[in-house]
Amino acid sequence: MQRALIAVIVINAVTIGCETSSFLMERAGGLLHAIDRIALAIFIVEIAARLYADGRAFWSDPWNWFDAIIVGIALVPASGPASVLRALRIMRALRLVSAVPSMRRVVSALLTAVPGMASIIGLLVLMIYIAAVIATKLFGDIVPERFDALPRSLFTLFQIMTGDDWGNVAQEVMEEKPWAWIFFIVYILISTFVALNLFIAVVVNAMND
Amino acid sequence: MQRALIAVIVINAVTIGCETSSFLMERAGGLLHAIDRIALAIFIVEIAARLYADGRAFWSDPWNWFDAIIVGIALVPASGPASVLRALRIMRALRLVSAVPSMRRVVSALLTAVPGMASIIGLLVLMIYIAAVIATKLFGDIVPERFDALPRSLFTLFQIMTGDDWGNVAQEVMEEKPWAWIFFIVYILISTFVALNLFIAVVVNAMND
Amino acid sequence: MQRALIAVIVINAVTIGCETSSFLMERAGGLLHAIDRIALAIFIVEIAARLYADGRAFWSDPWNWFDAIIVGIALVPASGPASVLRALRIMRALRLVSAVPSMRRVVSALLTAVPGMASIIGLLVLMIYIAAVIATKLFGDIVPERFDALPRSLFTLFQIMTGDDWGNVAQEVMEEKPWAWIFFIVYILISTFVALNLFIAVVVNAMND
Amino acid sequence: MQRALIAVIVINAVTIGCETSSFLMERAGGLLHAIDRIALAIFIVEIAARLYADGRAFWSDPWNWFDAIIVGIALVPASGPASVLRALRIMRALRLVSAVPSMRRVVSALLTAVPGMASIIGLLVLMIYIAAVIATKLFGDIVPERFDALPRSLFTLFQIMTGDDWGNVAQEVMEEKPWAWIFFIVYILISTFVALNLFIAVVVNAMND
Ligand code: NA
Ligand code: NA
Repeated sequence: MQRALIAVIVINAVTIGCETSSFLMERAGGLLHAIDRIALAIFIVEIAARLYADGRAFWSDPWNWFDAIIVGIALVPASGPASVLRALRIMRALRLVSAVPSMRRVVSALLTAVPGMASIIGLLVLMIYIAAVIATKLFGDIVPERFDALPRSLFTLFQIMTGDDWGNVAQEVMEEKPWAWIFFIVYILISTFVALNLFIAVVVNAMND
Repeated sequence: MQRALIAVIVINAVTIGCETSSFLMERAGGLLHAIDRIALAIFIVEIAARLYADGRAFWSDPWNWFDAIIVGIALVPASGPASVLRALRIMRALRLVSAVPSMRRVVSALLTAVPGMASIIGLLVLMIYIAAVIATKLFGDIVPERFDALPRSLFTLFQIMTGDDWGNVAQEVMEEKPWAWIFFIVYILISTFVALNLFIAVVVNAMND
Repeated sequence: MQRALIAVIVINAVTIGCETSSFLMERAGGLLHAIDRIALAIFIVEIAARLYADGRAFWSDPWNWFDAIIVGIALVPASGPASVLRALRIMRALRLVSAVPSMRRVVSALLTAVPGMASIIGLLVLMIYIAAVIATKLFGDIVPERFDALPRSLFTLFQIMTGDDWGNVAQEVMEEKPWAWIFFIVYILISTFVALNLFIAVVVNAMND
Repeated sequence: MQRALIAVIVINAVTIGCETSSFLMERAGGLLHAIDRIALAIFIVEIAARLYADGRAFWSDPWNWFDAIIVGIALVPASGPASVLRALRIMRALRLVSAVPSMRRVVSALLTAVPGMASIIGLLVLMIYIAAVIATKLFGDIVPERFDALPRSLFTLFQIMTGDDWGNVAQEVMEEKPWAWIFFIVYILISTFVALNLFIAVVVNAMND
């Protein structure tokens, strides 16, 4: 029974993937759509059956909420501005996580790690926000394509924290303000150090289990 | 009481962020400035109250120094050359760290990890310095925009240690001096290895606590 | 005996490497080919001897399969479309792994770590697949050189997961769809978090041994 | 006594750094050279004194070899082709490592970790070598500036292993050979996995001490 459901999920994930290919859509578009409809029908029936069997208890398991929301998205009429929802239809493949016990356990373990990291994540967000306000005020006029407004500065500083292309960003700013290296190096040292400790918090938590 | 203070800190952090937007400043600049003044007044009153209550004992807790300095910066008249200080006004949001006990604990833990890393950090700094002197002498004439003087070489070598764009820097140099790969690969291997051990020192310290 | 075999493997690896140099091929091509033939003959004789000595038991050790396949590849006539096989001839150097006991132990240890990571690897693959389908649908028309079809999107998203040049990719998309940062930042946070836990799974497994 | 030696090492390191600045050399070149001579004289006297005191036992401590070689380099007449040696004069700053006990302990600990990693490092080197031979044969004609000969391929593949700019290298190749992603993704997965296990070997060793 569970194996059949997993097969349907995988087949549906593959057909939604195939729908991105105009080559396959021209030749087998009708078939792909038909499989998609059948798979969706199976998901709805399966959830309805579980809902009927468990009654109110159904809603006490967060994984059931997860299943219901994912299938529910597929029922929203996706036209016009809701076309992004259509692209999210592939999210249905996430039902694999709730259907395969070992994946379910992995995701549960990942999620239980999050609360223990809340303080360090909060500190990291605070740091990026402070750095972004400073960078917008100091560098906004010099390199507007990176720091012209708070949202863009937040994006740029997130990029710098991941180590992507930060040397170029810093050098663009340093052409006008040669002392700007202080800002970038302090930011990288502190954000790397905090991210490192976030990492250690996760490892130490995992070790204690 | 503490909750109210946290609320003021968060609101003030948001309004300072909003001040970076010329759109919001045109429409609600007066309001934003007013909130900023009120928040600053609350911070000053709060510190003054604690200072009155604790007397000399106030200065024995480093977190109180932290609070006092952050608020003190806001009182420096920020005009002309001191305009950088104005940009640092957002630092006030760091008061969140001293106001929220769980963040306070995280930052204390981070800071106590630093002394145990002093020798490895010293070694890393020594290595970057030596590499920068060598690079300035050997490559300063070939790629002056990277290695023309010691400060720039230090910056470039810090960038290389983070792995950002080092292949391009190395190749610019190798066009003139084909053997330069020796320098870059030795530098990357040693600095990565030392940084890795810095990391392990932090993890092992964290495990023992 | 084993030492002599290791010497042959190393010499053969060096001569195959030398064959990539047209300078050396002009001057010593005949010699290099002759050494290659002799080394291959030694490998075949060595495997045949072990096969004769062990009989059926030979095939019960996966390392023997490994040796037989590597040497077998060399016997396929490599001309025309099979020229890729010729380039794979250097794979013979992998026999070093089965010939040196300490390397054999390292590779065995690495491989035994893989099954314990299966669920997390499955989750990571599922995530990249879902993200690639979404990116193809949403960004395929805007930045076709990165997201025009599912295979290219998979490649681009793998590249982004490794942190290489992701800022540029995101910015190309954001020029048309400014909200696209949501997709990229969510993708990076989730994929880094899952990869981090993959890493922890490996470390914890290694610690328990 | 030891403190005075450390002071001389630091002062000498600073003056050698200052010698890279033409501004300082014009104004205080004579002084900088004089300090350098005096520092070198002190180093030689200090080593001679220890050599006299310890006799043959001097050479049984590897740190003494380290000190003697570093000071010895400074005595080679550095003119013409030996000018690289002049640039290496700053290596004298490494005497700080042997002079400061805590740094000495850190470096000893780092070096004792190396033998335990020998097998994994060997595996990594073998893998890069095999990949470089394959890449030279398959991609040498397409992207000669990255893969024209074995040394350059080795450099490029080391760069790819560090994650620097690998997406661009792969895409240049894929324009001609669209299936080349297989090579790059397999290479990145394997080399990252082996490097990860190298890392774990170091951590586990450090934990056991
Ligand atoms: Na990078
Ligand atoms: Na990069």
